[in-house]
Amino acid sequence: MKHILLTIAYDGSNYNGWQRQSNGIGIQEKVEEACFKIFGQEISVTGAGRTDAGVHALGQRGLIKVETSIPTDKIPYALNSVLPKDIVIRAAREVPENFHPRYDAREKTYRYLILNDKFPIPQYRNISTFISAQLNVEEMDKGAKYFIGNHDFAAFSSAGSSVKTTERTIFDALVYREDPFVIFEVRGNGFLYNMVRIMAGTLIEIGIGKKKASDVKDIILSRDRSKAGITAPAQGLTLVEIKY
Amino acid sequence: MKHILLTIAYDGSNYNGWQRQSNGIGIQEKVEEACFKIFGQEISVTGAGRTDAGVHALGQRGLIKVETSIPTDKIPYALNSVLPKDIVIRAAREVPENFHPRYDAREKTYRYLILNDKFPIPQYRNISTFISAQLNVEEMDKGAKYFIGNHDFAAFSSAGSSVKTTERTIFDALVYREDPFVIFEVRGNGFLYNMVRIMAGTLIEIGIGKKKASDVKDIILSRDRSKAGITAPAQGLTLVEIKY
Repeated sequence: MKHILLTIAYDGSNYNGWQRQSNGIGIQEKVEEACFKIFGQEISVTGAGRTDAGVHALGQRGLIKVETSIPTDKIPYALNSVLPKDIVIRAAREVPENFHPRYDAREKTYRYLILNDKFPIPQYRNISTFISAQLNVEEMDKGAKYFIGNHDFAAFSSAGSSVKTTERTIFDALVYREDPFVIFEVRGNGFLYNMVRIMAGTLIEIGIGKKKASDVKDIILSRDRSKAGITAPAQGLTLVEIKY
Repeated sequence: MKHILLTIAYDGSNYNGWQRQSNGIGIQEKVEEACFKIFGQEISVTGAGRTDAGVHALGQRGLIKVETSIPTDKIPYALNSVLPKDIVIRAAREVPENFHPRYDAREKTYRYLILNDKFPIPQYRNISTFISAQLNVEEMDKGAKYFIGNHDFAAFSSAGSSVKTTERTIFDALVYREDPFVIFEVRGNGFLYNMVRIMAGTLIEIGIGKKKASDVKDIILSRDRSKAGITAPAQGLTLVEIKY
């Protein structure tokens, strides 16, 4: 039995998130269907974490346990041949039996894409959030810097998740302009439910002058969700990379 | 009666090209429907040129003639409020009565986007062509340079168009890498039917070593379509800008 870790990219627009849902199709389900077609076995895919409906990934990870004669480096081609075009396996490697895609993750990187232009650009409507007001990127970046370090991020978490601790360590966070986009990138040891979208929403409020960069410090200390900004729309968010 | 020139962006994925077609919906038709809703009149939109099914635009132009009290700078907002999300009016300005969006165009810029990576990236599947073989971008750029100048581009034109002359002037052409993309940009006084896609197809064949950069010179001189490369897929092409 091989334990194989897949790197999975997807356009989340047409799915109800990573996880199999009663009220819509999950990406996980599509990958499991593809595994059944290729390996002829019911295989469950253990993801490195959930992504919400409409959220994208470049580097989601999924573990499968399978008996197969297909060489590991050919597995992406095999699975891609039966996957829909909005899900692509970009890599496969064997991992030890005790490897866990979620618990063993050391670092995750997310990117939040804001289309900051006078009018929307239709080609990017599903992978970005449109903001017509000129954003103050320098202030947003200053705000983002307060995320760095080990903090209790309760204020940046939606209700509905049950986690042991709301402490997380952010290794890096930055906001920069790459016309017509403003991009927020954040790298940390883990993220709470909706944490990156609430960070993005808070930074957007800083960018339009509704909040100050230094407010982020107080919001973190408050541990109060209502002090932070809105939960920015799902379609701007991409899970870029997971490191082990 | 105001003559108003619209700047139109669209994701062409779901349309049968710019022009109203018997066998599918054209973008022009959608803009005309929006005009009817906003202005309460049947208005025809004269485009600066056709784009094929699946081709995108950032800066297509369309002329409308309309009696309206809506200030010209508010017209994009009005039309966008009733247009589908894959079509966006990005500007509107008044032009003189004798202005013609096609005949008065001095310069058009196109961009052809190639996703050049080991595996496709689903987020970009509708706006790029996927090539897994590592492209030789330097050779492609050398090949593109032969396009520059005034040439008879008969070899880079598909049958089915009736034009007075197949001569066109290319002001600039270049190929560069911007990972994970390889981008071909070309600027000229006008383009024949499928010309940019055949240029792109020829450059791709250079990039994979099937043709040499210097072949472009001979292909142009041959005036023979069969000497040039394939017509690259529509979805990689974007009409970027038209200057008057």
